[in-house]
Amino acid sequence: MVEIKHHIFVCTSCRLNGQQKGFCYSKNSVDIVSKFMEATEEYDLSGEVMITNTGCFGICDKGPIAVVYPEGIWYGNLTEECVEKIVEEHLVNGQPVKELII
Amino acid sequence: MVEIKHHIFVCTSCRLNGQQKGFCYSKNSVDIVSKFMEATEEYDLSGEVMITNTGCFGICDKGPIAVVYPEGIWYGNLTEECVEKIVEEHLVNGQPVKELII
Repeated sequence: MVEIKHHIFVCTSCRLNGQQKGFCYSKNSVDIVSKFMEATEEYDLSGEVMITNTGCFGICDKGPIAVVYPEGIWYGNLTEECVEKIVEEHLVNGQPVKELII
Repeated sequence: MVEIKHHIFVCTSCRLNGQQKGFCYSKNSVDIVSKFMEATEEYDLSGEVMITNTGCFGICDKGPIAVVYPEGIWYGNLTEECVEKIVEEHLVNGQPVKELII
C-alpha cells in the first residue's frame, strides 16, 4: 500500500482521447498543480502529500477544482493564493478552508 | 459538497503538457476506465461512484492502476476482468479485492 496522508487531485481537463482542453485548463489549472507542488515542498510535506492531475470532474463552472482525499473535500474557483491557504490551513494545520469548499 | 460513496481514479498517463503517453496508457488503461464506467452502470452505481482519469501516480511498473477513495485502496496490474471483480466485490459488496491490492 502507498502511505500518504493527503492525496490532492487537480483537474487539468485531460480527456480520454489525449486532448487537454476544457474549462479548468483554460483557467490555468496547470499553474494550480505547480503551486500545490511548490507550496507542499516549502512546508516539507512532500512525503505525506501526493498531487495528481486529472480529467474533468463535471462541475466545470466551479473550476479550477481540487479534491482532497481521504477527507473528500472539494475546493473550487481556485487561484494560487487559494492554494497557499489550503496548504497552510488544511494540510499543515488540519483545518479545511471552509470559504473555498464547493 | 459532492456526495459520492466511492471515487475511483484511473491513471491514463495524462501529462501536464497535454500529452497522453506512458506506461498505463500503453497498457490500455483507457479501456480500464471504460470498463469501470460500464460495470458501475450495470450495477446501477452511477449515482454513488465517480470515475476520473488521471496523470501518473509514479508506480508505473504496477500499472494499470486504480485508486479508490475515501478508502485509499490501490489496485494494480489491472485487466478488464479485475475491474469486474473490483466492482462486484468492493463496490457492491464492500469487500476490497485483496489479491489485486498493491
